[in-house]
Amino acid sequence: MTTIEDLQTPALLVDQAALQRNLDTMAAALPGARLRPHVKAHKTTALARRQSDMGHTSFTCATIREVEGMAAAGLGADLLLANEVLDMTRLGRVVEAGARVTAAVDSPETVEAAAAGGVREVLVDVNVGLPRCGCAVGDAGRLADLARSRGLDVRGVMGYEGHVMLVPDVEDRRKQTEDCMARLLAAHADVGGDIVSAGGTGTYAVNAWANEIQAGSYALMDTAYGAVSDLPFEQALFVLGTVISRTPPADGIPGWAIVDVGLKSLGMDHGNPSVPKGAVWFCSDEHVTWQPDDFDSVRLGDRIRVVPAHVDPTIALHERMWLVDGDEVVDEFAVDLRGW
Amino acid sequence: MTTIEDLQTPALLVDQAALQRNLDTMAAALPGARLRPHVKAHKTTALARRQSDMGHTSFTCATIREVEGMAAAGLGADLLLANEVLDMTRLGRVVEAGARVTAAVDSPETVEAAAAGGVREVLVDVNVGLPRCGCAVGDAGRLADLARSRGLDVRGVMGYEGHVMLVPDVEDRRKQTEDCMARLLAAHADVGGDIVSAGGTGTYAVNAWANEIQAGSYALMDTAYGAVSDLPFEQALFVLGTVISRTPPADGIPGWAIVDVGLKSLGMDHGNPSVPKGAVWFCSDEHVTWQPDDFDSVRLGDRIRVVPAHVDPTIALHERMWLVDGDEVVDEFAVDLRGW
Repeated sequence: MTTIEDLQTPALLVDQAALQRNLDTMAAALPGARLRPHVKAHKTTALARRQSDMGHTSFTCATIREVEGMAAAGLGADLLLANEVLDMTRLGRVVEAGARVTAAVDSPETVEAAAAGGVREVLVDVNVGLPRCGCAVGDAGRLADLARSRGLDVRGVMGYEGHVMLVPDVEDRRKQTEDCMARLLAAHADVGGDIVSAGGTGTYAVNAWANEIQAGSYALMDTAYGAVSDLPFEQALFVLGTVISRTPPADGIPGWAIVDVGLKSLGMDHGNPSVPKGAVWFCSDEHVTWQPDDFDSVRLGDRIRVVPAHVDPTIALHERMWLVDGDEVVDEFAVDLRGW
Repeated sequence: MTTIEDLQTPALLVDQAALQRNLDTMAAALPGARLRPHVKAHKTTALARRQSDMGHTSFTCATIREVEGMAAAGLGADLLLANEVLDMTRLGRVVEAGARVTAAVDSPETVEAAAAGGVREVLVDVNVGLPRCGCAVGDAGRLADLARSRGLDVRGVMGYEGHVMLVPDVEDRRKQTEDCMARLLAAHADVGGDIVSAGGTGTYAVNAWANEIQAGSYALMDTAYGAVSDLPFEQALFVLGTVISRTPPADGIPGWAIVDVGLKSLGMDHGNPSVPKGAVWFCSDEHVTWQPDDFDSVRLGDRIRVVPAHVDPTIALHERMWLVDGDEVVDEFAVDLRGW
């Protein structure tokens, strides 16, 4: 039996039971094609296959490599690149090889890139309030017309209300989502097509206007989404570390310990990670300096489960994740969709 | 001729001339073994070989994989693992294969790990003020005695004044470094051995007490070190991105543009990156949203050099770096020391 004691640290751990409960909860709320899981959160075809096994066979991607990797893994029934790219020749090759690829477009240039690259289906990406990609509502219809004039099939619209995901109060979040989706539906009226794609883990339950939700973080979670109290998903992702150094209390300074998890194994844009039974002081390249609640109980060699603040960029730093049942390692997934 | 227009973005760029000037400046200040370059900053054996060609043939590492990779690349003349590990069997195999490996120890357990793992040489790691690894000054002599009793060669001491690196005023930084090094020299008096190893890019010129300096960031730099005005090193590292979306000014909101560089290609612990001729609003997984100083001059497809706030975790997100002379791509280095 392999246990977490046998792993080289830092190591990405996934609590298999918590993952399965998260998948179950989401599949009950948004069955089948109502969810278009976003693979950018986990970058792992083996985990995408579990989502497919739950009935979600259409997927969202953020990079060309994610599209290529999903297709190569046999998960290319309906892949949406929910991001703008100006050279779609690699995507066109994926289409030629038999996968279904739909690309987001928000400008005449991205429409031309789709036509030139051999991508035959597009969604018009609409700015619903997050200042990022997406055309103005008033331009969506013209873009759809341009796309159709180039022989592209316009499947509908997408718009990501990313700025709403972490709004703490659920009613406030629902109201802000409604405002965003009013813009998306106005664009949809001009664009046509079957798809109104939006949403994420924070709004999956309150976005009643989109007909498919692009959630990804729900499967593994992080402390940022964990702080949103109405979400029913459990923390399933941890970065396992080893206590490699400890400094006892002295001169009025409390004791601290060092676990070998750091900036090279943690996404830091949402701030410091959390450590159970202790407070994090700061992170370095290969270290978390933290103050245990009970210093004397911490021993060199102890294995500690550090909880990341942001799941997506954390996973992008790892080559593999280990599925665990308690401390037993039961499976290994390659993080095989990294890079571009 | 390959140019930056041919690269898939995001892509790590290294300005070859700026890199060479940084290497020259450092080699003039700290020739030969006075510098023990830290490979954690770049994780690239091809770049370490350039440092070796400048006369620095001893190196500092932060992970076991960095030690293994450097030895496999033929750069194992004198490798210091400046970090604590409790299982040194992989390091012992590197020693058996003919490389010289010295490990940091700061506890009886790490001493025993060195002896058990087949590492024959150690440095006593001393806490000089940064709350991280390192034993108390008063414990250093006993640890050295323990190590020698286990048949280990104690080469000296190390202590990293990391909390001093970014102190803006150089005199203030020098004074704080002196205080840290007083602790290290006190420990050295009890430990013995030839080596007093410390320092980094921020203190390389003011640390007159260590006899070797562990600087790494100087070769490529980042905006955090760039803000330290007395340092003579130039920004040589950029993350190349493509403008994939732009939203013109409307309703009193200034225009913004999106470049396809984000949290998956940037270390974020020091905050947002910088974009020339513009202000960064925020970063997403695959996007920087920024406001160009001159919106009308920015076109879809433009290549933009984003400047990272922290070099080490940025490079850890990339598989390769492209060396450039202006816009011409002149070489490709594999980032081959990633992982653990």
